[in-house]
Amino acid sequence: MAHRIEFRDTHISLAHGNGGRMMRELIEQVFVTALANPRLDTHADAVALPIPADRELVVTTDGFTVQPLEFPGGNIGSLAVHGTVNDLAVSGAVPHFITLNVFLEEGLEIALLRRVVDGLAAAARDCGVVVVAGDTKVVPRGDCDGIYLATTGIGFRPHGTHLGMDQVRAGDRILVSGPIGDHGAAVMLARQEFGLYGELRSDAASVLAQAQALMTVAGLRFMRDPTRGGLGTVAHELARATGLGVRLAEASIPITDSVQSICELLGFDPLFLACEGRIVAVVAPEAADAALSALRTVAPRAALVGELGAGAPQVVLDTAFGGQRALDELEDDPLPRIC
Amino acid sequence: MAHRIEFRDTHISLAHGNGGRMMRELIEQVFVTALANPRLDTHADAVALPIPADRELVVTTDGFTVQPLEFPGGNIGSLAVHGTVNDLAVSGAVPHFITLNVFLEEGLEIALLRRVVDGLAAAARDCGVVVVAGDTKVVPRGDCDGIYLATTGIGFRPHGTHLGMDQVRAGDRILVSGPIGDHGAAVMLARQEFGLYGELRSDAASVLAQAQALMTVAGLRFMRDPTRGGLGTVAHELARATGLGVRLAEASIPITDSVQSICELLGFDPLFLACEGRIVAVVAPEAADAALSALRTVAPRAALVGELGAGAPQVVLDTAFGGQRALDELEDDPLPRIC
Repeated sequence: MAHRIEFRDTHISLAHGNGGRMMRELIEQVFVTALANPRLDTHADAVALPIPADRELVVTTDGFTVQPLEFPGGNIGSLAVHGTVNDLAVSGAVPHFITLNVFLEEGLEIALLRRVVDGLAAAARDCGVVVVAGDTKVVPRGDCDGIYLATTGIGFRPHGTHLGMDQVRAGDRILVSGPIGDHGAAVMLARQEFGLYGELRSDAASVLAQAQALMTVAGLRFMRDPTRGGLGTVAHELARATGLGVRLAEASIPITDSVQSICELLGFDPLFLACEGRIVAVVAPEAADAALSALRTVAPRAALVGELGAGAPQVVLDTAFGGQRALDELEDDPLPRIC
Repeated sequence: MAHRIEFRDTHISLAHGNGGRMMRELIEQVFVTALANPRLDTHADAVALPIPADRELVVTTDGFTVQPLEFPGGNIGSLAVHGTVNDLAVSGAVPHFITLNVFLEEGLEIALLRRVVDGLAAAARDCGVVVVAGDTKVVPRGDCDGIYLATTGIGFRPHGTHLGMDQVRAGDRILVSGPIGDHGAAVMLARQEFGLYGELRSDAASVLAQAQALMTVAGLRFMRDPTRGGLGTVAHELARATGLGVRLAEASIPITDSVQSICELLGFDPLFLACEGRIVAVVAPEAADAALSALRTVAPRAALVGELGAGAPQVVLDTAFGGQRALDELEDDPLPRIC
């Protein structure tokens, strides 16, 4: 937008969602000023995007309802970008474009919205993606918890990329790219409902460099970013999809002291806490060393944490004390609204 | 999903959003059973989509917060499909794929959710689109008004399609493909807060056939589906983007008697009521007759309703009584949560 009138409103009202003047000003002055790029045309219903001739189109989508909206290491805006970029990255794609849906609660402070949009814009710049289309809805006070976001990511990958749980075989190894549970623990602390305060930061970040490092390794079968439900849930999904048993070696799983302490204090299992900047990868047994080396060039704390074998499709944990325990699937929600 | 366990829960709980067993069952038993198609893989983070070699990729996105969730002529699910398909259609594209974000309120009746998902699935089948990716979030009771949806649509159009407000010239004519305001009026009545009951149905439907009919006409400049803010808001957007004056002939604008009566009773201006199955098109003056004929093959009540001319970038209404009045831009929200 050419003109730079200062946006005067301090709080969101229903009229910011009605398609009229106030909505136009909100979009121009708050969203477009932060997200401007040559493809973003707020006058258009849809946008045409270029497709590299030698690449395959890959698409993903995610919703975000995290509370609080701001937490150490990010906010709902940067989290939406990282979450979306990461789903493309673990599919072997390089992310290019994002569409953005914003649900706003009447009464929301514009200053907070600006910080969220700025966080989103900064994360998008860091990840090399641009917002190419968007929509904003305003709902009455009490019908939304401040801000919800929904993003769709569009990226491209080489034709013939075969990654997926259907590629996984007995004997394959499981790697994790860094300490688990940081995002879940940081958001939990940021809620302050436990009366705990810490230095913990969310690990929310792009995993594109990690994923691209793994893509160079022959024998890469599958990648996933262990968000909601954490590493434990990815392990269960692997067992269910492959019919294989999953063994995780507890002592090998990287975890920071802070996350470990918080979990012990509050009775959470870090295996089920969300990460937002890690990859779980499955590789052929003979590729495990190469994959770990490749991963460590960009993720020094990456580790080999388990393997898939014959036997019942369960998840078994070899405990640090030399015992074994079955890891049950997550039933109750230990921590809602984590992403 | 292969197994067909009956989904036993009757209401949404927070655990349906936690990434564990209950979320998996909700997705498999409620969403996948209705939306199943070969591209929808709930185990994958992202999906690869085929691109026709001779077409341009076109993307759009929209959020939906309509209240009530069900109304005569549709529900929030079918509305999301029609709204998304229509944004692609007016861009000259044929819609192919949709991504779906669902925000659910704790306590929502599963039976209602099923009706919404069924409405969405039926509309998708009618429109020839498939849901290729999705995400579900559950928020605590009171933090959402039942269901919000966000969809991104992906379609393809011929290379070199030049449609847009930047194509519009002085002298161009404005067409509408049918009676205006039906969606806005129907949703308003469905709220029952006015104590009025009527036969009125939303016009929510795909405009793809209308758009494709117009695409055959040389001299087509611009199309839009006049949703939030209605025809009046599209007229203002045209004036602002082109710097031209917009004249609308009130007597030529198609409107049903029911919508007219409701508006007179309640003091609404039908020009600002949402349509969800209409197109506003701008065509070169010499193409107006051909465009109207083409449009009427699929939209019998299509009409020529105005033109763009030199003069101040305002919207002027030639009234049915031979007078003129300036049509102001929408300020307050006459009817929030209409889409």
